Amino acid sequence: MNAKNRFLNFIEKLQDDLCHQLELIDGAAKFKEDIWEREGGGGGHTRVLADGAVVEKGGINRSAVHGILSDQAKKQLHTTNDNFFACGLSLVIHPKNPHAPTCHANFRYFELYDDAGEVADSWYGGGMDLTPYYLYEEDATAFHRELKTASEPFGPNVYEEFRDACDTYFYNTHRGEARGVGGLFFDYLRPSKNTPLFDAEKYTMAIGNTFAKAYYPILEKRAHLSYTDEQKHWQEIRRGRYVEFNLIHDKGTLFGLRTNGRIESILMSLPPTVRWAYDHQPEPDSEEAKLLSVLKNPISWV
Amino acid sequence: MNAKNRFLNFIEKLQDDLCHQLELIDGAAKFKEDIWEREGGGGGHTRVLADGAVVEKGGINRSAVHGILSDQAKKQLHTTNDNFFACGLSLVIHPKNPHAPTCHANFRYFELYDDAGEVADSWYGGGMDLTPYYLYEEDATAFHRELKTASEPFGPNVYEEFRDACDTYFYNTHRGEARGVGGLFFDYLRPSKNTPLFDAEKYTMAIGNTFAKAYYPILEKRAHLSYTDEQKHWQEIRRGRYVEFNLIHDKGTLFGLRTNGRIESILMSLPPTVRWAYDHQPEPDSEEAKLLSVLKNPISWV
Repeated sequence: MNAKNRFLNFIEKLQDDLCHQLELIDGAAKFKEDIWEREGGGGGHTRVLADGAVVEKGGINRSAVHGILSDQAKKQLHTTNDNFFACGLSLVIHPKNPHAPTCHANFRYFELYDDAGEVADSWYGGGMDLTPYYLYEEDATAFHRELKTASEPFGPNVYEEFRDACDTYFYNTHRGEARGVGGLFFDYLRPSKNTPLFDAEKYTMAIGNTFAKAYYPILEKRAHLSYTDEQKHWQEIRRGRYVEFNLIHDKGTLFGLRTNGRIESILMSLPPTVRWAYDHQPEPDSEEAKLLSVLKNPISWV
Repeated sequence: MNAKNRFLNFIEKLQDDLCHQLELIDGAAKFKEDIWEREGGGGGHTRVLADGAVVEKGGINRSAVHGILSDQAKKQLHTTNDNFFACGLSLVIHPKNPHAPTCHANFRYFELYDDAGEVADSWYGGGMDLTPYYLYEEDATAFHRELKTASEPFGPNVYEEFRDACDTYFYNTHRGEARGVGGLFFDYLRPSKNTPLFDAEKYTMAIGNTFAKAYYPILEKRAHLSYTDEQKHWQEIRRGRYVEFNLIHDKGTLFGLRTNGRIESILMSLPPTVRWAYDHQPEPDSEEAKLLSVLKNPISWV
C-alpha cells in the first residue's frame, strides 16, 4: 500500500475511534455526519456533535481532495507543479464546562505530482494544542507529558522543536497573548528528510494516536465540575480570542476561505457561543488573571 | 481655520450630538468614555454604552493621530511621504432587539506632509451601512432615501456610485452574502478633485450629519417590539457573519491590528453576544430566509 492510502486508512480509523470515544464521554449527544463533495475533486466526511452533556460543539472531520492548484496556492507552496492531493483529519472540541479546556488537532498529508503523474514532493503536517479557560497546571503538564513521551522515540529535540513552533504559531499577536497552553505544531515533514530515528509518516501517526490519551482524560476530569454564570461568561469572552485567532491569523482557515473550501467545515472550528465585552479585565489575583498571566508569559510545562 | 481643524471640530461635535441622542433613545444606560494616547502621536476618545434598554453594545469613537508611516502603510497608501495626520469618527450600534438593525458609520480625514511639513496630499472617506436581522423593507428604503437626499446636491450620480461601492465593500465573499442592506461607502475624496458641485469636505460632513435622521428613527421604531428566544438566537447567528466580515475582510480593522492600533477601540465594533451553529439554515419561506435571500441578491432600495 502506498503512503497516500496508508494515511487515508489512518485518518479514517482515527476519526471513527475518536468519535466513538467522545460519544461515550458525552453520554447524551451523538455525532451527525455530512458527506460532501468538492467541485474540483474529492470531498469529506464532516462529523459534528452539538449541545451534548459534556461537549457544547465538537467537530471531527476528515477530507481528501485533489485537483489543480491555483496560482496563489502554488506561490504559497513554492511549487511549479500543478496537480495535488491533500488529506487530513481536523478536530476541535469546545466543552460546555468552562473548567474543561478546548482542544484542537490536525493531521495531514500532501502530495504534488509532476507532469508524468509521479509524486514530485510530499509531506506531513499537524499537531494539537490545548486552550483552557481556567488554568489547571496539572492538566497542561499531563497534556504536554503525553506529547513529549510520544515524541521521544523520534529524536532528542523533537518535542521541544515542535512545542516551540506551536507557541509561535498559536499566538494572537494583536493581543500579545498565546491562544492557549500550547502543544505541538509541525509542517513540511518530508519523507525524503527521514533519518534513522525520524520517520515523518510514523511520527505524524504516533501523534495522531496520542490525541485520545492526551485530551480525553482532562475532558472527563473537568466536564462535571460545578461552575457559575460568571465563569461561563469568562469562557465566552475567552472564546472570542479563539475566534480572533482563527479568523485573523490561522493560515489553514484563511487558505480554506480563499480557495473556496467548504465554509461550514472550515468554520466548524468556531465556538458555539461567544462574547465581546469592551475592555474586559479580570480582577487582580483572580483565577481569570492567573490564566492571562500564563498566556502572556508562556511556561515550559514538562 | 484650516481643513484639519474644521474636521476635528466637526467630529467632536458630531460625537457629542450622536452620544447625547442615543442616550435619550436608550433611556437607561449612559456612555462611558476612555481617553487614550497613542505612543507614536495623538490619541482618541472612545465612548461605549453597554447593556442598555435599547442598545446592547454601542461605541461612538473619535481619534486624531499623527506620526511617521510604516513602510507597509506607505505601500498601502501608494506614497513616499513619511508624515501623516488622520482623524475620524467611527461608530457601531448593536441593538438588543433582533428587529432593530445594527448600524455602522465612519467619517475620516487624512493628510500627508512633504519634507517641508506642507500638506502634500489629503482626502476624506467614510460612509454608513445598515445590517438588519429581520428585513423591514420600509426601513431599508427610508435609510437609503435619507442618504440619497443628502447626496443629491453634490451631483447626479453621487448616491449611486457610493451605494454601489458600499455593496461591493461590505460583502462576505466566503459566504456569497452582503453584510447587510448597504448604504454609502467612499474613500480618497481629494479636495483637489472638487468640482463646482462636488466638495469633498462638505459632502463628508453632510453625510455625517445625516446619520441621526437615517438611523435613529429606525432604531426607535423597532427597539420595543416583542421577540422570541428563537429570534434572539437568529440575531446572534447573524452577528457571527458580522464578526466574520470585520475580522476577515474589513481593511480598516486589519490595518488597525497590523499597525498596533488600540485593540479595544478597533474591536469595539464586534457584537456583544454571538453564536456559530454548524450549517444553520433557516426554514424555507420564513422571515429569516427572506433576509438571506436579499443578502444573496442585493436590491436597489430607492
